[in-house]
Amino acid sequence: MLRLKNRMTDMLGISYPIIQAGMAGGPTTPELVAAVSNAGGLGTLGAGYMAPEQIRKVVREIRKRTDSPFAVNLFIPEQGDASKEQIDAASERLVPYRKALGLDGRPHLEKVAESFEEQLAVVLEENVPVFSFTFGMLSADQVEALRRRQIILIGTATTVREALALEENGVDLIVGQGSEAGGHRGTFLGSFADAVVGTMALIPQMVDQVRVPVIAAGGIMDGRGLVASLALGASGVQMGTVFLTSRESGAHPLHQEAVRKSTEESTVITRVFSGKPARGVKNQFFYDMEQYEKSLPAYPIQNALTKDLRSEAAKQGRQEWMSLWCGQAPRLAQKQKGAGEIVADVMQEVRQLLGK
Amino acid sequence: MLRLKNRMTDMLGISYPIIQAGMAGGPTTPELVAAVSNAGGLGTLGAGYMAPEQIRKVVREIRKRTDSPFAVNLFIPEQGDASKEQIDAASERLVPYRKALGLDGRPHLEKVAESFEEQLAVVLEENVPVFSFTFGMLSADQVEALRRRQIILIGTATTVREALALEENGVDLIVGQGSEAGGHRGTFLGSFADAVVGTMALIPQMVDQVRVPVIAAGGIMDGRGLVASLALGASGVQMGTVFLTSRESGAHPLHQEAVRKSTEESTVITRVFSGKPARGVKNQFFYDMEQYEKSLPAYPIQNALTKDLRSEAAKQGRQEWMSLWCGQAPRLAQKQKGAGEIVADVMQEVRQLLGK
Repeated sequence: MLRLKNRMTDMLGISYPIIQAGMAGGPTTPELVAAVSNAGGLGTLGAGYMAPEQIRKVVREIRKRTDSPFAVNLFIPEQGDASKEQIDAASERLVPYRKALGLDGRPHLEKVAESFEEQLAVVLEENVPVFSFTFGMLSADQVEALRRRQIILIGTATTVREALALEENGVDLIVGQGSEAGGHRGTFLGSFADAVVGTMALIPQMVDQVRVPVIAAGGIMDGRGLVASLALGASGVQMGTVFLTSRESGAHPLHQEAVRKSTEESTVITRVFSGKPARGVKNQFFYDMEQYEKSLPAYPIQNALTKDLRSEAAKQGRQEWMSLWCGQAPRLAQKQKGAGEIVADVMQEVRQLLGK
Repeated sequence: MLRLKNRMTDMLGISYPIIQAGMAGGPTTPELVAAVSNAGGLGTLGAGYMAPEQIRKVVREIRKRTDSPFAVNLFIPEQGDASKEQIDAASERLVPYRKALGLDGRPHLEKVAESFEEQLAVVLEENVPVFSFTFGMLSADQVEALRRRQIILIGTATTVREALALEENGVDLIVGQGSEAGGHRGTFLGSFADAVVGTMALIPQMVDQVRVPVIAAGGIMDGRGLVASLALGASGVQMGTVFLTSRESGAHPLHQEAVRKSTEESTVITRVFSGKPARGVKNQFFYDMEQYEKSLPAYPIQNALTKDLRSEAAKQGRQEWMSLWCGQAPRLAQKQKGAGEIVADVMQEVRQLLGK
């Protein structure tokens, strides 16, 4: 039997098994997060790139807008593997774009990433109801500190192996990220290429091997995707792209426009923007850089190198140089709706499909 | 509502919306095809590499074993783009393998592929109930000839664009082949890379755009996958890998063993075996040839070049040089069952999931 009320909704204290993905870099405004949570799903602040005090401020803004549970999503830190030569070459390649945008010569590598420890401290201090993370696992101490505050933990896995490791790590739920998903791949064991597994294949293999509830992600945009995910054995879904084009989304209008004009053939998984494979709409920056992809510095270094270029491109309306994260089902995100309306429409479609 | 009896089962005259994929090159014995059809699904003879008279013989063997509808699957022919230099270089690279197997020096390129026209003539003459095809579209004359015999037509699409073209071409049903699928990609418009779309994302986008019934394929191995596909708007499923390891399968025992020992991380889409991208278990031949992948002759030339090497490797039990086609959910194909039992188990699981 397909159950809409299940261990996932119980654990998270939500009405419907729908999580809005923690899309970092702007889309997850307090309005979006709160609208999803107020509608009975779980909104998520994508805080991976946010400074600790910024996270605190936005968490408080979310709390002003909702009494329902919500999540904060962070990135497990990594060193980033790159030689001085790689960094020099990658920096040099960005100079023409920077000049065209009026930025000075080479990018400056001052701060590669925010401090995860300080970000996590805010999650703990603010007693955020749900903490989700990607790109790896927590330390035993971190798990214990979060558990002590009764914060629910959601890890991200792209393979069965990763799901088993996260279960061992002590997470409460696991997002199974299929290859259709927009944005960064959460892969942290083995090779990225081997971990590009379609949602239809990934979810049943994962639920057969772990005891914790699995949340399906990747290509899910509506009630059809939610019912399909329940059938595969998932307890619910995490949806990104459909909320990226919602009315409350903070994604740049040109980013939203790119999603709306895309088809299932428009996206590619590439590391040219951040050094880590991520799915987005192909644009000129991708086509220009594709040939250097293998030699680019690893995440988060390449991410830091392209950061001000991308944000300046966004300011100046140069879509061709922005990162346009998007999943493989953009045809299903073409109508702009309120986030609460999206949740309500999904649930209505679910009830129709299940004849309830 | 999710309907198990629908336009697909009506058109095909079958009890359950399950097609056994037409896996070419050996797996689809008359016993397998007949067992699936006798169990209420649609068995398919994968006849793409078969000589016309061989097809006739096997079709008659299938008819001895079942009175139910079955399909024959063929490959739409293509020229194969390759320079003499490419062919020479690719041939030269095969010499060490050939020598190790006791074959003479370079491969001989006498017959690159069977005649599609002659293969199709047998399908018409034998009045095969269902004709399915991949790698392209039929000519208007071919469609008319098939229609005149009331043969039901199933095309294969990997994108919405291809599905629309097939509908225009006059097919009755369309298989939507997701990126999880084992074996050859059916892509015939645009680039192969752009058409690697996960089943979860592909199916709802496709059903929204075409009027003919869509059959989901790619990563579907059990009742969970069938219910999920119905939820996504498909009318049924086509399953390959799970039947490849069935008791009636003619797949080489080492091929079946490779599938059973695989995980969702084991496969790759590669053109090293045939010149056309196809998903299979990574083995030594893939690792050796990966570096030359871009310069290899196109299908069917590379396929013809590697053909006797692969069949000799199979004879001598050299798994490392065989093509081991497999989808992304091999963990769900680890138990050897009869094909009829697979169909029955799928349907039992479906009824449990739907609470019927």
